[in-house]
Amino acid sequence: MQQYFIYGSPSAETIEITDKDTIKHMFHVMRLRAGDEVVLVFPDGIKRLAEVVDAERRTMRIVEELDENVELPVHVTIACGFPKGDKFAAIAQKATELGAAEICGFPAERSIVKWDDKKLAKLAEKLEKVVQGAAEQSKRNIVPSINLVANKKSFVDSFAEYDKVFVAYEEAAKEGEKSALAKALLEVSAGEKLLFIFGPEGGITDKEIETFAEAGAVSVGLGPRIMRAETAPMYALSAVSYAIELSK
Amino acid sequence: MQQYFIYGSPSAETIEITDKDTIKHMFHVMRLRAGDEVVLVFPDGIKRLAEVVDAERRTMRIVEELDENVELPVHVTIACGFPKGDKFAAIAQKATELGAAEICGFPAERSIVKWDDKKLAKLAEKLEKVVQGAAEQSKRNIVPSINLVANKKSFVDSFAEYDKVFVAYEEAAKEGEKSALAKALLEVSAGEKLLFIFGPEGGITDKEIETFAEAGAVSVGLGPRIMRAETAPMYALSAVSYAIELSK
Repeated sequence: MQQYFIYGSPSAETIEITDKDTIKHMFHVMRLRAGDEVVLVFPDGIKRLAEVVDAERRTMRIVEELDENVELPVHVTIACGFPKGDKFAAIAQKATELGAAEICGFPAERSIVKWDDKKLAKLAEKLEKVVQGAAEQSKRNIVPSINLVANKKSFVDSFAEYDKVFVAYEEAAKEGEKSALAKALLEVSAGEKLLFIFGPEGGITDKEIETFAEAGAVSVGLGPRIMRAETAPMYALSAVSYAIELSK
Repeated sequence: MQQYFIYGSPSAETIEITDKDTIKHMFHVMRLRAGDEVVLVFPDGIKRLAEVVDAERRTMRIVEELDENVELPVHVTIACGFPKGDKFAAIAQKATELGAAEICGFPAERSIVKWDDKKLAKLAEKLEKVVQGAAEQSKRNIVPSINLVANKKSFVDSFAEYDKVFVAYEEAAKEGEKSALAKALLEVSAGEKLLFIFGPEGGITDKEIETFAEAGAVSVGLGPRIMRAETAPMYALSAVSYAIELSK
């Protein structure tokens, strides 16, 4: 069933849909009429079955709460050194499908495009639309937040907010020995906040690895193959899901 | 260091580069000159350091064998119900980065585009270029093979060639219980052949699941979130790598 994220309170007797894009999709694309049902997700992350009361007035009412939570048991932030062109939108879309709670961007040494605050605000607005659409498609309970920082120091300072910080880096894992990532994921408990850091196309520099390590980041390898900037975050999120949702 | 796949014998004293695209990249894009070194990978999957002898004549000689194998310990085939448009090229590229040994396409009930043998041959040629490029970038030891079948029966008959066949499908995993995929991957041994089947955009039908199950396929869930057709294969390959390369 079609799902929409709604900004408002689920306790109101009548819910009026006010977001322009949501109105367009509900009443022009899907052509919902009185009595049609969809799933509404409010900022509390609970899915609710709702039916259209009056399509002209764009009003709905809640039918019942649904017991359906598809969120990862841990809060995963994917942080990317600003990549080129439209690649960030593709990363944000796929990371949303794979369960990320937050998408972060920071100016890495090898980021080619330089972002000022004004440009970043525009990029954030674009990414917010992308993740909202992807979150609806993949039936998430939350829309991942977007957090683009213009300053690397404030990015590193934010490490303190996480339980574990990983930076994706080539790592010579010894044969027959669990990788640093696998060891760490065995110890993760529900509710923990994990941050995964990825470089832009040119990768992370040794100096960045050093700075991140001093601030508490652990370097982890993601297998022996070289992955593109947009592929490595997909691997990390799939590994977290596999380790926590399928293997425990 | 730049890597190229070469079709010929590594035992020859002088190796002449004859492939048009490889010549273009080596001598026009990279502008290699006598003495410059690159990595050549022959069909035996061994990487060899080689140096240019004569750039005009496009001749090279082997310097030494390199001890560098980045292949997954198991042979993974990704089979997709033919998706729309250019999506298959994106799947093939990412699956190559993530270690697939073979990319297969089959006509699923919900595949929108219909393929005859002539069109399939063209698509195969296109995908072969995509995977060769991706295999060079991700420093693979082999180029994944492309196998597009026009007939679903011959696809199902091919299940017999694999040690394990999985079909990605929503699965209600009970809490605290290992998923079917995690259980199966614990038992996989090096050298085994695994086939993962994915639906096109509209998904796999119940009838297809039944046909595949009768031919030995096990339905496996890939976590609770709905993934696009191109994202699910990435999850499966990352999970195989995580389970076998990082966790054992």
